[in-house]
Amino acid sequence: MITFNPIGTVVSDVTVQTDKQWGKTKSKIVIKNEYSSGLIGLSEFSHIIVVYYLHEAKFIKEKDLQRRPQGRDDMPLVGIFSQRAKNRPNPIGVTSVRLLEVKDNVITVEGLDAICDTPVLDIKPYYPSYDKKQDVSVPDWVNVLMKEYF
Amino acid sequence: MITFNPIGTVVSDVTVQTDKQWGKTKSKIVIKNEYSSGLIGLSEFSHIIVVYYLHEAKFIKEKDLQRRPQGRDDMPLVGIFSQRAKNRPNPIGVTSVRLLEVKDNVITVEGLDAICDTPVLDIKPYYPSYDKKQDVSVPDWVNVLMKEYF
Repeated sequence: MITFNPIGTVVSDVTVQTDKQWGKTKSKIVIKNEYSSGLIGLSEFSHIIVVYYLHEAKFIKEKDLQRRPQGRDDMPLVGIFSQRAKNRPNPIGVTSVRLLEVKDNVITVEGLDAICDTPVLDIKPYYPSYDKKQDVSVPDWVNVLMKEYF
Repeated sequence: MITFNPIGTVVSDVTVQTDKQWGKTKSKIVIKNEYSSGLIGLSEFSHIIVVYYLHEAKFIKEKDLQRRPQGRDDMPLVGIFSQRAKNRPNPIGVTSVRLLEVKDNVITVEGLDAICDTPVLDIKPYYPSYDKKQDVSVPDWVNVLMKEYF
């Protein structure tokens, strides 16, 4: 058993989970005061990776271990580790977002697909040489799905 | 308090933590049998994101909340959330790697910077439209650091 405590919380107008149109969503991440000095230098990055706890997710093995992405009939039946669905064995979200502002203990970002009150576990700077992969290929269904996500 | 249980474990020849030369490291990730059918469809992806628990990391606030990356004198003093150091408030690693093979419950990857026996929390497919950011900028020190990492 591995235990974590949130370092902060998402504050956003989005309060209900959705599979669509997150690309332009603006959110704030409020970091606990005890960690706010850990943000020094962050504003020099254009993008960050937000690691968060999908606090409303519930993994039911029979239903979620293999499923059609977004429950869509036009999607193939694939394993939970072959898709980004929320109901995972360990419901951890990892999203790379544009950083708009860092002010005191508040980070403003664009494109974070996490609802209001989501507990944040970690913030990492996006390193292109580490996170931006070349020669990436995905199955066709991913391109169909992603068209509607942004 | 948020609790997770590993879905699998890293098996690799690398047993001691290092800051250098991970790019060509080949590792296996052995997924627990109860989750192995969650890997269906994964082999169609060229890259995956491995989320893991940095089980040897220890965060000491006084030392780690602000530090020079890799303890190097030529690096600036920056917050823990502005760097990828291991000793974080929540020691979660997130690495995008090339997928070489999926066979039964064993995933073989290239470029995973996690030592042998590292507990794995999640596997996600790398979606270029979601994970591969455009117009990324970083401070100069990141480029200096990353040159020696791969």
